[in-house]
Amino acid sequence: MDKIKVVAFDADDTLWVNEPFFNEAEEKFCSLMEDFLSRQSCSQELFKTQINNLDLYGYGIKGYTLSMIEAANTITNGKMSAVVYQKIIEIGKELLQKPVALLDDVEDTLKKLKGSYKLIVATKGDLKDQRRKLHLSGLGDYFHHIEVMCEKAEVDYSDLLKRLDIKAEEFMMIGNSLKSDVLPVLNIGGHAVHIPFHTTWEHERIDHEIIHANFYSKSSINEVLSLLKV
Amino acid sequence: MDKIKVVAFDADDTLWVNEPFFNEAEEKFCSLMEDFLSRQSCSQELFKTQINNLDLYGYGIKGYTLSMIEAANTITNGKMSAVVYQKIIEIGKELLQKPVALLDDVEDTLKKLKGSYKLIVATKGDLKDQRRKLHLSGLGDYFHHIEVMCEKAEVDYSDLLKRLDIKAEEFMMIGNSLKSDVLPVLNIGGHAVHIPFHTTWEHERIDHEIIHANFYSKSSINEVLSLLKV
Repeated sequence: MDKIKVVAFDADDTLWVNEPFFNEAEEKFCSLMEDFLSRQSCSQELFKTQINNLDLYGYGIKGYTLSMIEAANTITNGKMSAVVYQKIIEIGKELLQKPVALLDDVEDTLKKLKGSYKLIVATKGDLKDQRRKLHLSGLGDYFHHIEVMCEKAEVDYSDLLKRLDIKAEEFMMIGNSLKSDVLPVLNIGGHAVHIPFHTTWEHERIDHEIIHANFYSKSSINEVLSLLKV
Repeated sequence: MDKIKVVAFDADDTLWVNEPFFNEAEEKFCSLMEDFLSRQSCSQELFKTQINNLDLYGYGIKGYTLSMIEAANTITNGKMSAVVYQKIIEIGKELLQKPVALLDDVEDTLKKLKGSYKLIVATKGDLKDQRRKLHLSGLGDYFHHIEVMCEKAEVDYSDLLKRLDIKAEEFMMIGNSLKSDVLPVLNIGGHAVHIPFHTTWEHERIDHEIIHANFYSKSSINEVLSLLKV
C-alpha cells in the first residue's frame, strides 16, 4: 500500500450521480412505448438493443439515444409517429445537459488526497460528455488529468499503466462497479476499492463475491482515507 | 526546426480516407429525402442541424447519425415512415464499419520518422471509432499513442503540450485542415504542415491565405521528410 503513486477515480456514480438519470430517461422512453409494450418488456428490449450495439457504439449517451430509436422501431414494428422519434432525440439531449450532482464527501476526500498522490479520473463513456461533467463538477483542479477509456478490461488498464509509466502495485482504482473498476485491476496486480452506489446498470453487475488481498470494500468514499497516507 | 521532439498527425483525411465516406452517407441520406427536398437543400439542412448540435454532440459518427434523424424530422415535417428512420440508423452503422484505406506514402513516411521523433495521432471525433481505425490501419506500432481531442482550438493544443510536457516550438502538427491542424498550432508557437486532401468538410474551410514562418504547405505527406531529420 505504501507504494501507491496514482489513485484513479471512476466518474459516473463514484464522483457524481449518473445511473439515476439513465433510469429516468428509460422511464420516459417506456412511457412513449406504453401503447405497444409493458414497462418491463420495454426495458428488456432496450437493454437487448444496447448490448447488441455495444461493440459498435461503445458507452455514452449518443449511442444510448440511437439504441432507443432502434428499440422503438422494433417495439412499434414501424407504427410510430415522427413526433415520438423527435421526443426520443430530446430525451438524449436532456441527458447531455443534466447538471452534475457530486456525491457525498467527494470533494473533501480529494482535497485530503491531493498533494500526496497523483489523482486521475478513469472513466468509460463519451470523451466530450465526461469532459463537460468534469468541468461542471468544479473538481478539475484536483485531478492531474482525465482518462476516457473505450473499455475497462485488463488490457485497457495495462495500457493505462504504460501511459502513466507506473507499475500495477503503484496503482489504486476506486469505483462503484465490481466488473469494471475492481476485477480487471486486481487481475493485473493493482489495488481496487469498491464504493457501491444504490443502483447499478445490469451490464455492470457480477454475481460472485470478491476475496483478494488488494481488494477493499467501503461504504463511503471518505473511508479510502484510512487506506492511504494523507 | 531542430528543436522538434513530437510530430503529431491528424487522422481523418491525413492518414486515411474519411470525408468521402461522409459524402457517400450524405448522398444516401438525401436520396431518402428526395420526395421532400432537393439534393442541395437537403445537404444544407443536414449541415445546419449538425452545426446546431456540435456543442452538444461534438464530432463523430454517432452525433452525425442523430443529426441526420433530426434533419429528416424537419425536412419531412413528420411525414416520414418508420422504415426510413431505420435506414438512417443503418447509414450510421455502415460508417462505423468502413474499412480503413491508408493514403499514399503514409506508412513509408512514418517508418522513416520513427526513432527520430515521438510520433502521435491527434484527432477529433469519437474515441472508440478512432481507436478502431488506428487498429485496422496497422499503423499502431509507429505511434507512441493516440490523443482524441474534443476540439482542436488553441486551448486544446496548449493542454496537449502540457500533457506531453514539451514546449510549443518542439511540436509539429501535420494535417489536412488549415482551421484545425494549422492555425491554432501556429498561434501558440508550434510548427504546422498542411497536406490538402481533395475534399474538405465545409465546417473546416477557411477563406484566407496563411503566411507564417512556422507554416509549410506540402502536396504529399512524404514531403515532410525534407523538413525533418531522418
